[in-house]
Amino acid sequence: MFSERIERLTGSLIREIPAAAQRPEVISFAGGLPAPQCLPELDFSGVPQALAQYGTTEGEPELRELIAEQARAIGVPCSANQVLILSGSQQAIDLTAKLFIDPGTPVVTEGPTYLATMQAYGLFGADITAVPQENGELNPASLAAAFERVKPRLTYLIPSFQNPSGACYSAATRQALAEVIDAAGVPVLEDDPYRELSYDGVAPAPLVSHLKSAPWIYSGSFSKTLAPGLRVGYLIASPDLYPYLVKLKQAMDLHTNRIGQWFMAKWLKSPDYPQHLTNLRATYKVGRDAMQAALEKHFADLADWQMPKGGLFFWLTLKKPQDTREVLKRALEQNVAFMPGEPFYPDPNAGIGHLRLNFSHTAPERIDEGIARLAALIRG
Amino acid sequence: MFSERIERLTGSLIREIPAAAQRPEVISFAGGLPAPQCLPELDFSGVPQALAQYGTTEGEPELRELIAEQARAIGVPCSANQVLILSGSQQAIDLTAKLFIDPGTPVVTEGPTYLATMQAYGLFGADITAVPQENGELNPASLAAAFERVKPRLTYLIPSFQNPSGACYSAATRQALAEVIDAAGVPVLEDDPYRELSYDGVAPAPLVSHLKSAPWIYSGSFSKTLAPGLRVGYLIASPDLYPYLVKLKQAMDLHTNRIGQWFMAKWLKSPDYPQHLTNLRATYKVGRDAMQAALEKHFADLADWQMPKGGLFFWLTLKKPQDTREVLKRALEQNVAFMPGEPFYPDPNAGIGHLRLNFSHTAPERIDEGIARLAALIRG
Repeated sequence: MFSERIERLTGSLIREIPAAAQRPEVISFAGGLPAPQCLPELDFSGVPQALAQYGTTEGEPELRELIAEQARAIGVPCSANQVLILSGSQQAIDLTAKLFIDPGTPVVTEGPTYLATMQAYGLFGADITAVPQENGELNPASLAAAFERVKPRLTYLIPSFQNPSGACYSAATRQALAEVIDAAGVPVLEDDPYRELSYDGVAPAPLVSHLKSAPWIYSGSFSKTLAPGLRVGYLIASPDLYPYLVKLKQAMDLHTNRIGQWFMAKWLKSPDYPQHLTNLRATYKVGRDAMQAALEKHFADLADWQMPKGGLFFWLTLKKPQDTREVLKRALEQNVAFMPGEPFYPDPNAGIGHLRLNFSHTAPERIDEGIARLAALIRG
Repeated sequence: MFSERIERLTGSLIREIPAAAQRPEVISFAGGLPAPQCLPELDFSGVPQALAQYGTTEGEPELRELIAEQARAIGVPCSANQVLILSGSQQAIDLTAKLFIDPGTPVVTEGPTYLATMQAYGLFGADITAVPQENGELNPASLAAAFERVKPRLTYLIPSFQNPSGACYSAATRQALAEVIDAAGVPVLEDDPYRELSYDGVAPAPLVSHLKSAPWIYSGSFSKTLAPGLRVGYLIASPDLYPYLVKLKQAMDLHTNRIGQWFMAKWLKSPDYPQHLTNLRATYKVGRDAMQAALEKHFADLADWQMPKGGLFFWLTLKKPQDTREVLKRALEQNVAFMPGEPFYPDPNAGIGHLRLNFSHTAPERIDEGIARLAALIRG
C-alpha cells in the first residue's frame, strides 16, 4: 500500500520526549527550545501589504542580500544569488535527501550526529557511516579513511557547537577536513544553526570557507537567535548545486512565508540586533555555567564531559555505561527529563551511555536540583 | 553524483512563464495569482508573543478546530485530530509522494491535471495514467477501467473548478466516483483549493464525503481566498493515513509558521469573513464574465470551451489543434501571455491544442484586448 520508504519512517524523539516532559513539575533538559524571555517581540507594524501575494521560491531579495553579506563577513565567499530561503533549516536536510539519496546511498556523518538528519536521510534509504568524534574534534584522517571505505555521495557535518556533542572544531581542523573533502570531491552539507550562541569567543570560520573545489551547501537558522515559530532558515550553495535545490524547494512548498522573511530582514539590519545577540549569549552563558557547576558537584564520579563553548547542550559520557533510554523512563517518574544519547548514532547500540542535557530552557536556579535528581538515578 | 530521481527533476512552467510575463506591457492570462485588491490587510496587532516559540507539527489547535468545523459543514466527517496544517497545500503533494510513490508506482489522475502535481509525483518516479475528462465530468466507468488496468497505489483528483480545466463534477458523479474508489480500495488525494471561488452557486460536497472505506486525504488552501504569501494550507486525512503524514511533515519542516496560522484562524472566525468571500466572488465573477464575453467575440470560430462556474481558469480546446507552446513564443512577442495546455497531460503530445487562461489577475477592462491579440495570433 505504501512506498517502501515508509518501512524506514520513524517518529522523532526530539519532539516526542519534550512532549512527555511538558508537565510543569518536570525539570526538562530534553528539548532544545530557546528561553522564552529571549524571544523578540512579535512586532509586525509596517509590514508591506504586498507580502500577502505569492513570492519567489528563492526568497525575498533583501533578506538574501543580508544573509549573503553576513556569510561573507564570516568567510563564506558567496553572492545573494546563492542564497535560498527555507521554511526552517530542517528543509536543507529534506532537500539534500532528495538531491543525493537513493536506497543504499552511502553518507558520512559525525558520530554522534543530529538525530533528525539521520531520520530524514534514513527515510530516503541512506546507509550512514558515522566517524567518531575524538576529544571534541573530528580527525581528518578518520574522515579520509571513511570516504575511502564507503565512497559516500554526501557528507553531513556540524562543526560548530554540534547537536548533540557541543563540539566546536578548531580552525586547523576545519582546514584539514576541507582538504580531505576537496581531495575526495564529496559534496558537503555544513549545518550551522548554533554559530551565534558562543559563550567563550567566536567560532572559527565555517568549514566551507576553506573549500577549493568540492560542491557545498551551508545551512543556517534564525530559530536559535530570533523566533523559531516563524519558520525561517536558509541555505547557501555552490553554483553547481543551487539550481537543483531551488527546483526541489519549489516542488515542496513553492516558497517560504514572506511575513517571517520580512521579520528576519528587519532584525538583521536593526541596530538592536548585536545587542539582542549579546543578551542572548549572556543569558545562555548563565545556564551553561550553572549546569557546569551542577555537573561538577553531582556527576564528577559518574561521567566525563567537556564544557561546551557554545550551543545549547552538554554531552555526558557515563563512566559505567548504561542504556540511557532505560534511565529516561525512571527519570520521567522522578520528574526530570533529558535526551538519551543512543539515538544520535546510526547504530544506537554503538552509542550506549551518553546523555544530552539542554541548558537554555530550564531556569538556572532549577538546574542544580534537576542534575542532582539525575545523578541519584544513575548512581542508584 | 545525484540521486537517480534528479534525472526526472523539471522546473515548473507555472512559475517560469509568469516570470517572463511580468513586464508591465504584457497582458498576462498565464498565472493563477489572486487579484491584489482582494488580498486582506496584513494586520498582526494582537498576535500572541508565545507564537515566537516552536509549535507542534500538527498545527495550532484553534485553527485545526476551525478547519474541521468548516469541513464538517460541507460534508466531510472529521475531527480536529485529523487536520494537519501545511506550509501551503503544495505540501500535501510532496507528503503523498513520499508516502506512496516509488519508481514505477502507478498513479491515476484526471487528464488534464495540475502540472505541479505531475512534476512532484514524477520526481519520485510515479507512472501517471490520466483519465480524460469528458464534457466537464470524469466518467466513473473510465476511472474504474483505469484502476483495473494499472492497479494504482494512489489516485489524485481535483473535482471542484479544476486547474486547469475549470471542471466541477456533479454530486451524482462524485457519488459514483467514490463508489469506484471504495470498490478498488485505492487511496485518494482530493485537492480542493478553489471551492470557495464559486460564481454560480456552491460546489457539491467533496468527493471524500461519499467514501465508505477507502483511505483518503482532502487538502485545502488559504492561498486563493486569503493570503498566499503566508503559506498556510491544510490536509485532513482518514485515521489510517494521518500518523504517517504527521511524521513526514515533521521530517520536512518541523511545523508550519505560527504567525500565518494565527492570521488564518483570525479570519476564519471573523464576522467579516463571509463578506470577504462574497466580495472576492463578485470581483472574480466580473473577470470571468468579461473573459466569456471576449471569447465569444473573438474565439467562437477558433475554440470550444465551457464557461467555468468557479475557480480561476478558462480551458480552451482549439478547433484546429496547434502546439500552444509554439503559440506562446509568438504571444510573448505580442505582449500577451497564457499557459500552454500540453504540460497538463502526462504525455504532452497527447494534449496538443489547449490553452489555459486566467481571469483573476488582469484588470477586466484589459481582458478583451488581450483575448483579441491571442485570437489574431492563432488565426494568423
